[in-house]
Amino acid sequence: MSRMGRQTFIYDNPPVIAAHRSVAGRKEGEGPLADWFDAILEDDLLGQKSWELAESEMVRRTARDTLDAAGLSAGSVDALLGGDLNNQIIATSFAAKKLGMPFIGLYGACSTFVEALALGAALISAGNLDSALCCASSHFCTAERQFRFPLELGTQRPPQASWTATACGCALLRSGGEGIRITSGTLGRVIDLNISDANHMGAAMAPAVFDTLAAHMEDTRRTADDYDLIVTGDLGWIGRDLLMELCHGAGLTMPEDKLVDCGASLYYREQDAHAGGSGCGCVASVSCAWIMKRIENGELNRVLLSGSGAMLSPTSSQQGQTIPGIAYAVALERG
Amino acid sequence: MSRMGRQTFIYDNPPVIAAHRSVAGRKEGEGPLADWFDAILEDDLLGQKSWELAESEMVRRTARDTLDAAGLSAGSVDALLGGDLNNQIIATSFAAKKLGMPFIGLYGACSTFVEALALGAALISAGNLDSALCCASSHFCTAERQFRFPLELGTQRPPQASWTATACGCALLRSGGEGIRITSGTLGRVIDLNISDANHMGAAMAPAVFDTLAAHMEDTRRTADDYDLIVTGDLGWIGRDLLMELCHGAGLTMPEDKLVDCGASLYYREQDAHAGGSGCGCVASVSCAWIMKRIENGELNRVLLSGSGAMLSPTSSQQGQTIPGIAYAVALERG
Repeated sequence: MSRMGRQTFIYDNPPVIAAHRSVAGRKEGEGPLADWFDAILEDDLLGQKSWELAESEMVRRTARDTLDAAGLSAGSVDALLGGDLNNQIIATSFAAKKLGMPFIGLYGACSTFVEALALGAALISAGNLDSALCCASSHFCTAERQFRFPLELGTQRPPQASWTATACGCALLRSGGEGIRITSGTLGRVIDLNISDANHMGAAMAPAVFDTLAAHMEDTRRTADDYDLIVTGDLGWIGRDLLMELCHGAGLTMPEDKLVDCGASLYYREQDAHAGGSGCGCVASVSCAWIMKRIENGELNRVLLSGSGAMLSPTSSQQGQTIPGIAYAVALERG
Repeated sequence: MSRMGRQTFIYDNPPVIAAHRSVAGRKEGEGPLADWFDAILEDDLLGQKSWELAESEMVRRTARDTLDAAGLSAGSVDALLGGDLNNQIIATSFAAKKLGMPFIGLYGACSTFVEALALGAALISAGNLDSALCCASSHFCTAERQFRFPLELGTQRPPQASWTATACGCALLRSGGEGIRITSGTLGRVIDLNISDANHMGAAMAPAVFDTLAAHMEDTRRTADDYDLIVTGDLGWIGRDLLMELCHGAGLTMPEDKLVDCGASLYYREQDAHAGGSGCGCVASVSCAWIMKRIENGELNRVLLSGSGAMLSPTSSQQGQTIPGIAYAVALERG
C-alpha cells in the first residue's frame, strides 16, 4: 500500500465492512430514517444511573450487536477504534473496558467515526490487524451539560444550533470476505475561518469539509461524477448550504442532488432540531443505517463519506477562541 | 508487514526517529533531568493569555523545533499524530491548526505519546506516510483546574497524588535515514482493578502497564533480558512499586534496576511532587530527552518504552466510577 497525493491513503488490500449496526435514541427514532436504524431506544437512559453510563452502555450494545451480526466474539477482534464527545472519551473507553479488546482511542469530535474508518482500514490493509471495530457515539444529554448548559435550565436554543443526536454506529472491518469495500481514506487538516459562535457548528466545520473533499478529489483524480453520493456528517441544513457555496466559489463541482448531509437528514424540520443533527453518533448511525444499507441493496455503488468535527471545548469557547474544524473522508464501494 | 501475537505490531520497515525535541516547565527544569531537556521554559505562560493557549504554544514550539532539527518545513511532513489531557484535546488541535499539516487526533490520556508512536510507526512502515510528527503535552495549570481544583484554591494534595508535568515531547518519524528504529508496537487493553481514588493514578495504571508488558513479551517472545531498559510512563514512585509487585506475583521477570519510570525520574523527592510526575508531557518529554539521547550516545541499545493513561474524567470520578487504565508500548533500538 502506498500513500497517494498529499492527504489520501489508497488501500492496496481494501478491507470490507463485514457487519455494521446502528442504534438511535427516541427522538432520532421518530425522524425520517426511523425504518433504517437497527435499534431504537425506548429509554435514552438505558436503565443506567447517569447519562454518561447510558452512552457507554449504548456503545457496548452497538458493538456487541455488530459482533453478533458477524458471528464473532469480542475476543476474536483485534482492536476497537473510536471515541465520543465526552471529556476524556469516557463513554467509549468504559465500553472498551467491558469489551476487553485492544483499544485505540481517538478524538476528532464529530469526525471520529470516519477517522476510525480511515485508520482502521489502513491498519487492516497493511496486515497489522485482521479485524477492527470502528465506532462513535453521542448522547444529547451528556453533550448538553458538558458543552452548553444543564438540561434542567431549559435554556433556549438559537436557530443556528444543532441538536446532538443520541445515537451510535459501529462497523466491523475485516481483511477479507463479503461486504462494502473501503478503498481510500483522506486525512483532514485543522481549518479555522474564525467562527466563534459555539452554537454554529455547521459554519465552523464547512470549511474543513471543503478542504478535505478538495484534497480527496485532487489526490484521487476523481470528481463528484465518480460518486453516486457525497455524504457529509453533521453539517446540518445551514452548514450544508455553506459547503455548497464554498464548492461553487472554488469551482469544485458539487451537484445539489448528490450532496447528502447526515445532520440534515436525521430529523424532520418540525422536530425542533433547529439546524439539524450533530454529534459523533449522527454520522456514525446514519452511515451505518441509511448509507451502508443502500450500498448493500444495490441502490448505490460508490459513496464518499466525510465526517467533520468542531475542535472546541467549553474552556476554549469561554476564553473567546474561535472554533477550528477538521474532516476525514473514506470512499465506500459495493463489494 | 504482518501482525504478530495478540496485541503487537512488528514493523517490517521500521521507521526511524529522525529528530526529537523536549520542552520542560520551570519546576521540571529544576529536577534531576534538567541537563537533558532541549529547552526549559522561563515562563510557564509562554506569553499567552491563558494556560490553555500556553500549552498549545508549547506544542507548536516543540513541533517547530523538531522540524527545524530535521531541516524540514511543516508542509513537507505528512501528518501530526498526538493529543493532550485537555477536554477535546484543544492544546494539540489548536497547535495543529497553526502547523497546517494533516492531523490524527488521539486520546489515550498519559499514554498518548506512545499511542502516537505505535500508530505513526505502523502507518510509515506500511507506506501510508513518509513522515509523521508524534507529540503529546501536558501543563500543570490546565490539568489542575480541569481534573481537580482551581489553582487559586490552594487545595492540599494527598501523598499519593502525582504532579502533572508542564512538558512536551515530539518525535519525527521517517521511513528511512539515520536514527533510532521503532521495531514493534504493542496496543493496550482497558484494564480496571477498581481503583476509585482520582488522586491515585499510579495504582489505577499499574495493572494496565503490566497487561501490556506481558502481552509484548508473549507476542515477541522476548523477556526483560532483551532490553537494556524498560521505561514506563507516569506511574510515579508508588505505581512503579505496584508494577514490580504485579510482575513478581505473575512470574514476569522484571529486574529492579532495569525498570525506570518517567514519573519517578522527573523530580527530586524534595520538590514536593508527592508520588512523582504524570501527564502526557511527562513520558513524552522524558523519553525524547533522557531516553532517546542515551540510545543515540550508545549508552543504551534497546529500550521498551511504555506509556500509560488513566481513562477518567472529572464527571466519571464525581459519579463514583472506578478508573480504568490503558498502556501502549514501543521497542526502540539503536540504528
